[in-house]
Amino acid sequence: MEGREPTLDEIFSPRGVAIVGVSPRDEWSFPTKVVHSLKEAGFTAIYPVNPKYTEVFGLRCYPSLRAIPGIVDHVVVGIPAESILALLDDCATKGVKSVNIFTAGFRESGYKERAELESAMLSKARAGGFRIIGPNCVGLFVPKTHLVNWTRLPLEPGPIGFLSQSGGNALDLPYHGVPRGLHFSKVVSYGNALDVDESELLQYFSQDPETEIIAAYIEGVKDGRRFLGALKEASFRKPVVIYKGGTTEAGRRAAYGHTASLTSSVAVFDALCRQLKTIQVDDIEEMIDVLVALRFARPLPQGTGVAILGVGGGPSVLASDEMEKGGLHLPPLSPEVQGELRQVLPLAGAILSNPVDATTLQSPEAISATLRVLGKVPDIHMFIYHLGFHPVSCWGDSLVPLETFIQPAVDAFTQAQQATGKPILLALRPPPDLDGMKLFFAAQKAFVGAGFPVFHSLQQVARAMARVVAWYQARHP
Amino acid sequence: MEGREPTLDEIFSPRGVAIVGVSPRDEWSFPTKVVHSLKEAGFTAIYPVNPKYTEVFGLRCYPSLRAIPGIVDHVVVGIPAESILALLDDCATKGVKSVNIFTAGFRESGYKERAELESAMLSKARAGGFRIIGPNCVGLFVPKTHLVNWTRLPLEPGPIGFLSQSGGNALDLPYHGVPRGLHFSKVVSYGNALDVDESELLQYFSQDPETEIIAAYIEGVKDGRRFLGALKEASFRKPVVIYKGGTTEAGRRAAYGHTASLTSSVAVFDALCRQLKTIQVDDIEEMIDVLVALRFARPLPQGTGVAILGVGGGPSVLASDEMEKGGLHLPPLSPEVQGELRQVLPLAGAILSNPVDATTLQSPEAISATLRVLGKVPDIHMFIYHLGFHPVSCWGDSLVPLETFIQPAVDAFTQAQQATGKPILLALRPPPDLDGMKLFFAAQKAFVGAGFPVFHSLQQVARAMARVVAWYQARHP
Repeated sequence: MEGREPTLDEIFSPRGVAIVGVSPRDEWSFPTKVVHSLKEAGFTAIYPVNPKYTEVFGLRCYPSLRAIPGIVDHVVVGIPAESILALLDDCATKGVKSVNIFTAGFRESGYKERAELESAMLSKARAGGFRIIGPNCVGLFVPKTHLVNWTRLPLEPGPIGFLSQSGGNALDLPYHGVPRGLHFSKVVSYGNALDVDESELLQYFSQDPETEIIAAYIEGVKDGRRFLGALKEASFRKPVVIYKGGTTEAGRRAAYGHTASLTSSVAVFDALCRQLKTIQVDDIEEMIDVLVALRFARPLPQGTGVAILGVGGGPSVLASDEMEKGGLHLPPLSPEVQGELRQVLPLAGAILSNPVDATTLQSPEAISATLRVLGKVPDIHMFIYHLGFHPVSCWGDSLVPLETFIQPAVDAFTQAQQATGKPILLALRPPPDLDGMKLFFAAQKAFVGAGFPVFHSLQQVARAMARVVAWYQARHP
Repeated sequence: MEGREPTLDEIFSPRGVAIVGVSPRDEWSFPTKVVHSLKEAGFTAIYPVNPKYTEVFGLRCYPSLRAIPGIVDHVVVGIPAESILALLDDCATKGVKSVNIFTAGFRESGYKERAELESAMLSKARAGGFRIIGPNCVGLFVPKTHLVNWTRLPLEPGPIGFLSQSGGNALDLPYHGVPRGLHFSKVVSYGNALDVDESELLQYFSQDPETEIIAAYIEGVKDGRRFLGALKEASFRKPVVIYKGGTTEAGRRAAYGHTASLTSSVAVFDALCRQLKTIQVDDIEEMIDVLVALRFARPLPQGTGVAILGVGGGPSVLASDEMEKGGLHLPPLSPEVQGELRQVLPLAGAILSNPVDATTLQSPEAISATLRVLGKVPDIHMFIYHLGFHPVSCWGDSLVPLETFIQPAVDAFTQAQQATGKPILLALRPPPDLDGMKLFFAAQKAFVGAGFPVFHSLQQVARAMARVVAWYQARHP
């Protein structure tokens, strides 16, 4: 009707949003939650739609889309599948630009008539000049324009663009990523990919000036050739971190049931990622770790040499094994360097051979002194500092007086990073109790606030850095 | 001198304990912490030793071991290495049974004279008729006799015996295990294994009536032939879960610097574990998971068939992949079974093909109904239920009203487990914020309290159950 399809940028900055299927009697329903979320974010033009009510949650409620007096660019839909075609007619009449269909039970249900319904929906969108996001998805999180379908996250935009076929993962990445310092330009949960799909979103993010790093959770690919082109361009322009679900028979079955995705061969996908220099990860946790490394390692390590320092012989031994397994390298320290370390660290209970492990490495002075010595070793390209929060409850009180530790440690790391020109990565291991978690979150907040990459175990750092260094070396051979 | 060496059982139940090197001016020192810990545990005959004080922490303090009027069976030592030989003479005079040497900086320091000092210490112990635990270790945690070197853990004994070459791991396993329901007969941190070593401890635990499951963290093996015999007998009698540190070159270097361990070839050790039907794990986290499965899966699953049910398509897809990678199997559900599920679960947003995923699987009624249907499928040997705690902070309030969810869910699972005779395993995914953690810990406590095995991610359940089922099938071919 309009002649030209709306762009994704137009979709991400709507002037008015209608939410269809809001009910004040069901606080848990998705449309209700979207209303709350937009309100909390200070989005101004919110139009709940439900013929049964004239007011919901302090907002005027409209009997239909057509009854809304203002401009509606974006519609969020959570009504039964059977009623959607009629609603899409209203969308065309109202001249909306995009419809985010939360409703599930379409192609992925396995029913033929539901797959046909999807096709009819797409025809309506084409004819009506609007785009569909979904169905079977949680839609958009665009902090800059306050178009946020989920809440309790800061409205601070950041450089990461995330496209996720799964709604759960679209929530998990920001919820677990924000405390680690990750912020987002746009998060798009696109579900069954009836219209807006993985290739279009990849293309968009690779051009988007607000996006510096692209993250993608993909179960299936709609058009292999288009996807190949989009991934190639995106990976050429920006770091792309991709997590592919459905790599085994059972996973493929789950992916089909989840978003009607026909997943491709694992071997083909792996080879593709290697060739295009795309960073592949195995789960959302690893995706967060890799994003944290890409975002906060300053600079990105120029090689595989790692020095590990911290407290705890057991974790040090494990970390050494994990680093080497992941393809990183712990250069042994020369007798001269070990001699220098001996002057700043105690002999008893210390390992001075890389990993460097000493109980005094809980003091910022010892950390600084150790990093001064290690900073001169040429084949070390990054430092990993680790600290377990379990001792908080071990021996009657904290081994680490965190009040006096955190700020001096932040200063020590900041100084050492500047002096050595090599990145410092932190592994803070969370404790199993609530009191310990309070200290843990406080420490994490301080280190993240100072711009450091924080991980939750030495295995996680090892896994993530092995990926990032391999990617970096492939890009800068 | 005494003619007969004290047994480990005698060592684990001393009548009096002396702590040498206590200082009221250093709250962080190990001897000080041991005094606090024994006091808190209600151990009665505690004798701090330090010639500078006559009273510490409300206890009479003695100038020397010899000055103590009462019986001293066990001595905890945290004084400099140089002073230890003289102290061991006092131990012989006083007729003690065991000396736990926390002090480090011996053989593992790489200095020849420190290795010789170790040998001299061993000669003194042999001549004096007492045993040495350590050096370079945190010693004993025996809740039954209140001989506990670290505190803030319940004094409830349990069926797990843990020998750990690393002090950090000796703390990590109970601190992270207790909230998961794991309790211990004895935890022994044995450090450099100068006297009491891995083979003796394995032999002890395999005979100990209070130990049903043996866990071991080992960096190096002192005597291959003895160890082989001990591991063979232990693995024949009881489930043995072993985590071997130092499997790469860097790890081996760290292990030597940590506990002076010369680690053996990975391939040999792997083959040994397979042959002896020992369960090998890759880190302490996995050790906890496997112990939780062995302890609480009721009964142990009789095969590799898994049904996954829960909320979240993304995690379901991932879990399917993880299960299959680990050697478990997700049988597809027949159209008849899927038809039955359709009557108890909504069509929209649900995956009914195994994994079974539906938002209503947050209601105990839906859980019960689903388990009733799945309970009849013969090739399913265990059920894994998963629930993410991230939604707590997602959409303005909790998706799961935990107050009303936990107890009904416990009841639903208990009933289903009894009715089906197949184990139910729970994956509760922790949230990234303190408010969420409160709910998470409350839920974990309730499920653990009801005797369920609780894990923290679907990957963890998959990894642990793959190990446990492989072990079970090897034992019951």
